[in-house]
Amino acid sequence: MNATELHQQSIIIDGLIIAKWNRELFEDMHKGGLSAANCTVSVWDDFQRTVDNIVEMNQLIEDNSDLVMKVHTTDDIRKAKEAGKTGILMGFQNAHAFEDQLGYVQIFKDLGVGVVQMCYNTQNLIGTGCYERDGGLSGFGREIVAEMNRVGIMCDLSHVGSKTSEEVILASSKPVCYSHCLPSGLKEHPRNKSDEELKFIAEHGGFVGVTMFTPFLKKGPDATIDDYVEAIAYIVDIVGEDQVGIGTDFTQGQDKAFFDYLTHDKGYARELTQFGKIVNPEGIRTVGEFPNLTEALLRNGFSERLTQKIMGENWMRILKEVWGQ
Amino acid sequence: MNATELHQQSIIIDGLIIAKWNRELFEDMHKGGLSAANCTVSVWDDFQRTVDNIVEMNQLIEDNSDLVMKVHTTDDIRKAKEAGKTGILMGFQNAHAFEDQLGYVQIFKDLGVGVVQMCYNTQNLIGTGCYERDGGLSGFGREIVAEMNRVGIMCDLSHVGSKTSEEVILASSKPVCYSHCLPSGLKEHPRNKSDEELKFIAEHGGFVGVTMFTPFLKKGPDATIDDYVEAIAYIVDIVGEDQVGIGTDFTQGQDKAFFDYLTHDKGYARELTQFGKIVNPEGIRTVGEFPNLTEALLRNGFSERLTQKIMGENWMRILKEVWGQ
Repeated sequence: MNATELHQQSIIIDGLIIAKWNRELFEDMHKGGLSAANCTVSVWDDFQRTVDNIVEMNQLIEDNSDLVMKVHTTDDIRKAKEAGKTGILMGFQNAHAFEDQLGYVQIFKDLGVGVVQMCYNTQNLIGTGCYERDGGLSGFGREIVAEMNRVGIMCDLSHVGSKTSEEVILASSKPVCYSHCLPSGLKEHPRNKSDEELKFIAEHGGFVGVTMFTPFLKKGPDATIDDYVEAIAYIVDIVGEDQVGIGTDFTQGQDKAFFDYLTHDKGYARELTQFGKIVNPEGIRTVGEFPNLTEALLRNGFSERLTQKIMGENWMRILKEVWGQ
Repeated sequence: MNATELHQQSIIIDGLIIAKWNRELFEDMHKGGLSAANCTVSVWDDFQRTVDNIVEMNQLIEDNSDLVMKVHTTDDIRKAKEAGKTGILMGFQNAHAFEDQLGYVQIFKDLGVGVVQMCYNTQNLIGTGCYERDGGLSGFGREIVAEMNRVGIMCDLSHVGSKTSEEVILASSKPVCYSHCLPSGLKEHPRNKSDEELKFIAEHGGFVGVTMFTPFLKKGPDATIDDYVEAIAYIVDIVGEDQVGIGTDFTQGQDKAFFDYLTHDKGYARELTQFGKIVNPEGIRTVGEFPNLTEALLRNGFSERLTQKIMGENWMRILKEVWGQ
């Protein structure tokens, strides 16, 4: 089977996109053959602003129902693929939206939120992000993890500090993930994960989505899709063939104001990091180029079976385990 | 001068009251000869609910303007005393009400909030309370401390964890306080402060208000006003005569539901502590008995001058230093 056919036949899942949501993006998702994507609807937002973001996303989905549909289950994702649409799975990059209310976890699950990152870069009520000293998972954080386990929302640890991550991995009764990360074995960076961290999450049944965000890649803005494949191979070596997938971190359509929002604590306070030039690896600069990734994996010696697992099947299995359906 | 006369002539300040706010309480404050009190208007409340609490307090002050007046400055406190009224200084026991907005610090200052405790028992965006593992002051917390310094709100550390407290003491350019605490030298308790902690805050220009909450006193519910004086003397020995005052923690008029609210994380989540029977020390069971404290200090050998300092003058000096007026 050639790469194009394999891509078309496979379930393709992107574990993290934080693009500008609009019809152009949905068209590009269609072009890229995406079966589903974890679409960020909350970063620094509180409960109500997050609900407002979801209202907006609901309306966008409604207005573009020829291209996308909301998904709550892995069955929904299969249905989306069958219908030739992309499933929109809503996710948070910060559990801040739960505020101080355990009951809001169920509320957001009911609204279609399937993956929630515990912290974004800094400290919240639950734990601490990867850009400051990390005191670990709080008592309230343990209650939140238990509630996320109960209702079936996956804990994401990509931007979470090392100690908080370790304690969430141990506290959670369901598999957790780094939805979008790179190995510090290839480049040292506060956002990248060490071999030990990657081993630890895998040994505890967790999952690793590999990002391609060039500031975290060895070659930076000069990286190509083959450097991305190198990072995927590096992580497969550590976590095995079944607990790895894709989490691109596409920011397609976002402007400087949005990156300023991301890189400042609470969206406006002190600056936490500077990324410099942001450009995706050559060969996969846009969501529409997703088929190139299947091609690049095959070209770099990944088997058809392993390619399918990485491109989506592994995500499907782990999401079903967490969601229960 | 006898005790009654001294009490009447002195500025009397209670650094912490969390009573049920109503006319009966204000009448008792009047009977007790209080010039001013730091009255808690926020514990687990978010921004808006805290504003609602302030609206309620404003209305109560308006309705009882024969007994109380709102105070923003130490001059206001002197005016309250001259008018035979009690100054209501609004305070928070949790900086949670600032939410994630640095700008809310100025907003609350303008509304009459003069003292804010950084954390209440557990972790918030700023640091961690004294009832769980404490990872220290967060980066956002440092920004909040700087903003509180700028606008003139005193940082209170009574319910704050040891590490966060130490780092706030070091970070603050203005004096900070334990508004209501007891020494662990007399009884070991997570809420009590060690000799080292008391020395540390004093050496850095800070202030210690002494509480009489019997669960934290050696004799528990059997304590009398003399046990309270013993604790005050213990703290004077450590911090000296100028950096100590009163912070009773009166909960007069509060019911079981309120204590359940206080003792559970976020007001409803896991239980953090159990106090057992709560009764104030014999001799100072009610706010109206405040004059007994002046009498007990004198009877236990405190000079008139030192008694006046402890009963209010020291608070006045330090508040003026923080507020600027």
